Amino acid sequence: MNFEETLREKTKQIEAVLESFLPKEEGFQKTVIEAMNYSILAGGKRLRPMLLSETYRMFGGTDRLADSFMAAVEMIHNYSLVHDDLPAMDNDEYRRGRKTTHVVYGEGMAVLAGDGLLNYAFETACRAFEEARSLEEYKRVAAALTILGKKAGIYGMIGGQCADIEAEKKQDTVTPDMLLFIHENKTAALIECAMMCGAVLAGADERQIADVEKCAYNIGIAFQIQDDILDVTGSQEILGKPVGSDAKNNKITFVTMHGLDQSQEMVRSLSREAIALLSSFPSRNLFLEKLAEQLIYREK
Amino acid sequence: MNFEETLREKTKQIEAVLESFLPKEEGFQKTVIEAMNYSILAGGKRLRPMLLSETYRMFGGTDRLADSFMAAVEMIHNYSLVHDDLPAMDNDEYRRGRKTTHVVYGEGMAVLAGDGLLNYAFETACRAFEEARSLEEYKRVAAALTILGKKAGIYGMIGGQCADIEAEKKQDTVTPDMLLFIHENKTAALIECAMMCGAVLAGADERQIADVEKCAYNIGIAFQIQDDILDVTGSQEILGKPVGSDAKNNKITFVTMHGLDQSQEMVRSLSREAIALLSSFPSRNLFLEKLAEQLIYREK
Repeated sequence: MNFEETLREKTKQIEAVLESFLPKEEGFQKTVIEAMNYSILAGGKRLRPMLLSETYRMFGGTDRLADSFMAAVEMIHNYSLVHDDLPAMDNDEYRRGRKTTHVVYGEGMAVLAGDGLLNYAFETACRAFEEARSLEEYKRVAAALTILGKKAGIYGMIGGQCADIEAEKKQDTVTPDMLLFIHENKTAALIECAMMCGAVLAGADERQIADVEKCAYNIGIAFQIQDDILDVTGSQEILGKPVGSDAKNNKITFVTMHGLDQSQEMVRSLSREAIALLSSFPSRNLFLEKLAEQLIYREK
Repeated sequence: MNFEETLREKTKQIEAVLESFLPKEEGFQKTVIEAMNYSILAGGKRLRPMLLSETYRMFGGTDRLADSFMAAVEMIHNYSLVHDDLPAMDNDEYRRGRKTTHVVYGEGMAVLAGDGLLNYAFETACRAFEEARSLEEYKRVAAALTILGKKAGIYGMIGGQCADIEAEKKQDTVTPDMLLFIHENKTAALIECAMMCGAVLAGADERQIADVEKCAYNIGIAFQIQDDILDVTGSQEILGKPVGSDAKNNKITFVTMHGLDQSQEMVRSLSREAIALLSSFPSRNLFLEKLAEQLIYREK
């Protein structure tokens, strides 16, 4: 199989894992569960569970210990989209070609659905304790839960969202430090979370986990800078959305802050370091290396 | 010390534990942290951490293992208030005599602050693993985390909120089953969570944990029915809020559904069973028994 076929195959397997963890749509709380599943089943690249699963395999993981964390990290990603789309936040009516959750279920129910997904992410991750057999495995699950909490919260994704809201209100005060903080936390933190949880659950040692974090950081930041670059250089046909929207909204991006040349050089340098780190581990995962490259040097 | 003095003293100690777990208001994410702490520091009875702590002591807990769970359960209670008060939900501008979070920080930041508190509750609870020394203690913390997740989520508090929203939209379709479901989940679930976490962390056995759940259920439901009763029989002076507001809003309550006499009888019977359960454990906690009684037979 070539890379594209393998990617499709693996995405299908991840969808099956996700679906196995979704709550049943029944009971007096049926509506909030429907709204949660509506968001999860809208599709998407399943990037975070895939990075988690591939990092888990790279460090020798073979059983189901990581499955519930794969579902958990995708639930967290989706709750953040549901709340981001709310009228009080970005006020988006469409995502992935479908009406957003609050448009279909109402605003109150969308707030609850986001809360439900965030809470259910932790419930689902906790199910990994059912698979733990030894003190060592309990410690791994506990360490992964701690990473999940930190990278998703105010010292991770939520922290980045807060800074992003502030930056949009006062664009003239955005410094390079603040812009980097936003991308580190809003985008990179959950990618770090996914890859670190995979490594921790497979039993990677501390130095390896630190290297995985650095590698995921590079992938996350490069991914985001590439996003900013594509908004300037991309083709609307390939992207499937209008280009130049950042400039139109006077949005501060890596490209407006550092220029196109320097942004492209940053992507190259972050990417080189990420791939170098990935290929430094005792056991390599060539699919993961290719995936990281594709994420960074994508055209859409 | 009499009960009232002990209650005040213990509340102060709980406030100190809570404050020790609050995040520092600094960094580019300072605003969301301020909004989170604004909500936690607004006061309140600290009922859930107190029930957790007293149940922990009743089963012989003496160290700090339960501290982070006391903070976690209060964070979950507070995030639910922040999101409940949003314009998309109850649209309340004042709570405990202060402006609500979204009035002070804006709606977007209030959504984030609620998310931040919910996420930070799990982060904080995970810190109990730092205190765990043996496989047995890891298992206890894992079991308590699992209870926290379940009772706060769609099979607990969030489930109750969903049914409550639906009930308000279609009041003529509310059945006794649905009303009980709402009170079981919106009110009782987090009280069960608090007392069960206390019992589990202290090492109570399975049968004791089931009895604690039943006891907390009775306290929670009785507490809520008493709320409905006070809205009819209470004095505005003592309650500090207008009476008869349920009737004015045509809200379905235990009193409108079952009548005043039967509601009062339900409170007495639930309360008797709760106290009987509490006094059945090998080691009694007289303060906890008195607290449960006061919660049920309160005048405000």
